[in-house]
Amino acid sequence: MITIDHDVTMPLYRQIYEQVKNLIYNGSYQAGSKLVPIRRLAEELKISRNTVEAAYLQLTSEGYVSSRTGSGFTVEALELEKSNAQSTPNRNSEEFLDCLQQAGIWSANSDQTDSAKSVSLNSTGIVGQVINSADCQSKAIYYDFTYGDLENRSFPSQIWRKLTAEVLSNKGDHLANSYTDRLGERGLRSQIANYLHINAGVNCHPAQIVIQPGTQLSLHNLLTLFDPFKDIVAMEQPGYKGVISVIKNNHFKIFPIPVYDGNDAIIEALYNSHARLAFMTPSNQFPLGEILPMVTRQRLLRWAIEKDTFIIEDDYCREYRYNTSPLPSLQALDNKDRVIYMGTFSKAISPSLRLNYLVLPPDLLFEWNRVFDHNYAAVPWLIQAVLEEYMKQGFWEKRLRKMQTVNKRKFLTLKNALRKHMGSRVDIRESGSGLHLLVGDKLGRNQSTLIDLAKEQGVSVYETNCCWLSDQHPMQNYVLVGFSAIPEADIESGIKLLANAWFAD
Amino acid sequence: MITIDHDVTMPLYRQIYEQVKNLIYNGSYQAGSKLVPIRRLAEELKISRNTVEAAYLQLTSEGYVSSRTGSGFTVEALELEKSNAQSTPNRNSEEFLDCLQQAGIWSANSDQTDSAKSVSLNSTGIVGQVINSADCQSKAIYYDFTYGDLENRSFPSQIWRKLTAEVLSNKGDHLANSYTDRLGERGLRSQIANYLHINAGVNCHPAQIVIQPGTQLSLHNLLTLFDPFKDIVAMEQPGYKGVISVIKNNHFKIFPIPVYDGNDAIIEALYNSHARLAFMTPSNQFPLGEILPMVTRQRLLRWAIEKDTFIIEDDYCREYRYNTSPLPSLQALDNKDRVIYMGTFSKAISPSLRLNYLVLPPDLLFEWNRVFDHNYAAVPWLIQAVLEEYMKQGFWEKRLRKMQTVNKRKFLTLKNALRKHMGSRVDIRESGSGLHLLVGDKLGRNQSTLIDLAKEQGVSVYETNCCWLSDQHPMQNYVLVGFSAIPEADIESGIKLLANAWFAD
Repeated sequence: MITIDHDVTMPLYRQIYEQVKNLIYNGSYQAGSKLVPIRRLAEELKISRNTVEAAYLQLTSEGYVSSRTGSGFTVEALELEKSNAQSTPNRNSEEFLDCLQQAGIWSANSDQTDSAKSVSLNSTGIVGQVINSADCQSKAIYYDFTYGDLENRSFPSQIWRKLTAEVLSNKGDHLANSYTDRLGERGLRSQIANYLHINAGVNCHPAQIVIQPGTQLSLHNLLTLFDPFKDIVAMEQPGYKGVISVIKNNHFKIFPIPVYDGNDAIIEALYNSHARLAFMTPSNQFPLGEILPMVTRQRLLRWAIEKDTFIIEDDYCREYRYNTSPLPSLQALDNKDRVIYMGTFSKAISPSLRLNYLVLPPDLLFEWNRVFDHNYAAVPWLIQAVLEEYMKQGFWEKRLRKMQTVNKRKFLTLKNALRKHMGSRVDIRESGSGLHLLVGDKLGRNQSTLIDLAKEQGVSVYETNCCWLSDQHPMQNYVLVGFSAIPEADIESGIKLLANAWFAD
Repeated sequence: MITIDHDVTMPLYRQIYEQVKNLIYNGSYQAGSKLVPIRRLAEELKISRNTVEAAYLQLTSEGYVSSRTGSGFTVEALELEKSNAQSTPNRNSEEFLDCLQQAGIWSANSDQTDSAKSVSLNSTGIVGQVINSADCQSKAIYYDFTYGDLENRSFPSQIWRKLTAEVLSNKGDHLANSYTDRLGERGLRSQIANYLHINAGVNCHPAQIVIQPGTQLSLHNLLTLFDPFKDIVAMEQPGYKGVISVIKNNHFKIFPIPVYDGNDAIIEALYNSHARLAFMTPSNQFPLGEILPMVTRQRLLRWAIEKDTFIIEDDYCREYRYNTSPLPSLQALDNKDRVIYMGTFSKAISPSLRLNYLVLPPDLLFEWNRVFDHNYAAVPWLIQAVLEEYMKQGFWEKRLRKMQTVNKRKFLTLKNALRKHMGSRVDIRESGSGLHLLVGDKLGRNQSTLIDLAKEQGVSVYETNCCWLSDQHPMQNYVLVGFSAIPEADIESGIKLLANAWFAD
């Protein structure tokens, strides 16, 4: 009754297993009947006994048959399989799928979600996006002031396709099969070093640049060079939730320091912190947007030199400043190798590239090389090679200009719309840079109220609570309003609707 | 004397900084002379004082000028800059470049290395590959029996190019700009779940599959769910160096257990280990190649159930078995959710894809989802989307068959060549699976001797010492001979040369 096919990729044991299971389900094998003995079936099918045994033992472990020494394999009643199923929950059971949905891991109507996602926000504001949240309350969102994403259709698909084809033709045949340089492709690192030198004054050799799969994993790797059993990480509060999460997940203690606000509290806090590492965002404090002045930058460096510590300078948003000329990066001012510089391509090309980089001071570079001696490159070669050409052929420079222009317009439109429609009823925190601003309600309503009111009208704004280490903080009434993903033409009508949601009489 | 250009991307402060530095270098500014006061220069150039101050302070921090209250910025003698340069080592200094080269991080003649790399091994055996090792001894290698890489030109470039174009046209415009589902693209996870079900009996919902950037980072992330302060990881010894490295870097203790050798020592060791996690390679023990029999698999699972522990089943090489039919994976036998299954695309498509996956039991899936709540996808969307199409359109199935055929031929050619040219002078450890075998010298010479002798003749074979936790181990005289990267036509001549290197009279 059982046959095997050597020409399919399904393993032989699995072919036998599937057929026996079918025979049990369709009643050909009744409960209590015996399976064909291993030796006999192996001879009939001209295969190894191990293969038949593997099939029978898998059937046993799943409760379809039982085996007793000397009496072979006996088919169990199908009811038994069900009781067994309680310990092996069926991965398509309603119960399991409900849990997945409640945890926000996989919604049952995932196809629906996917197609809803593909309904992009558009400037007519007519087509809405369905947001499936864990509590199953779906609301159509017409205006999404999210942070981090870029605008739909803004990815340079045509150029990327062309460069991918070029790279695969010219270099793909040999390189795509090797583990690449584990610190990153040299050509790409040279392009980045050059860009950083001109744009941020970063002083480094390309060898000091380590290509990584995103800010979080790069920080995760970097923390490997430190010791969670004794090293403390200082971090501005409020700060980026993604970074707080990585530091905690790596079992390091976080020492919160205040954000710069015109005095030296931040420096004093660092001297009191006993920190070995400080995580900073000097050119655009996340989420407050403050720019650290030169004098404070120099004091920061003095602290690092005196206390023999390192500063992680996350320059995630250097590209975007609208009224102000950028200051030199901390790394540019550092002449004692205390700064670890971090940059990303997420904000100017696409977050889905999953590509950022660290610039390591020499001591940490050598330590990284030693610690990750047996580790491979973390970013696909193809992405690195295409990005290298993208930079080398001048597309990056053009892209930067274009994105700066687009976002400057959006920034001004957003500020003007807020002033026009909300006037003095809100406090706006911005520093002429970045891809978001914070809006505080002067009536003092807290952010979950503000977010819910907005959602009622089909507008998404975002919480800032997650940026704080504690629930007790002075910015309960501030929400984050991002403008990188929303089209310029949608901004004013979105803000008008938001004003209506918050301040309608 | 100083001008600025608003139309270039170089920041304004940097334009000023560069020009002042040039004026100092070309002698226009002599030592002791004063820079134009900040306020005046700002007015002349119609820019903010902050910008000029930034330029001057960077010059100060680099030692070109000094500032004293009330007397402005004074140009220093250029000699001073040199003494300052000792604390800011020039990143192109010979000394620094030497250090980079000695650490194997960046060789001075990197262009040469790159072009040497592009000289692929070919079946004529005439063109050699120059290996730059840290000790600067360069040797031409004609036959490289390396492990892990695939054959040059074996990457499916044409198909990949076509699918990339398809994906960018059809879906790229909106999806490429979003952070993707942080556990991985759903379509790809469904494809993988289907493949694993048919080929390894893996019983899971696609939601349980987490897409990751390579075995090492996936393990690094997985260990985040455990506690280095108290959890112990059991691991077969010998084992894969890359995994040993990740476990140690995450500060976990490793409890070594023996490789299965026909008795139950491995199970006894586990019961004595107090381990919370065991890392195993049941379908092809790395590096010994042993296949864990069904009975031992069941005992392993019993240990995990009784002791409430997890087993990481690294099924890195399931695709490659030549005489034997595959057994069900541990995951397929597990009805108590104790197994974390790991698989990779490195061995069948390309290691440079940097794409592997974990299949998490539900409890760990929910924990992962909670711990990485604020984390983004780790693998570029484009790579995931193209691989999804590659699987969906049937290329993966064809690729697997082709790679299995090619590697089976190479495996047999290698074994025959070893028997023919070395006969009983070596011991061959293989299990009819995998992409390498171990060769032991019956004269008992140790591996560094064997490797050096081989290198003299232009043949690369590899050490196994790095697979052991201690220098003291019983396989000093075994080297690793891989066959995934070397062309079939080169195998016999390579082994003949190796025999000559080792046993020439």
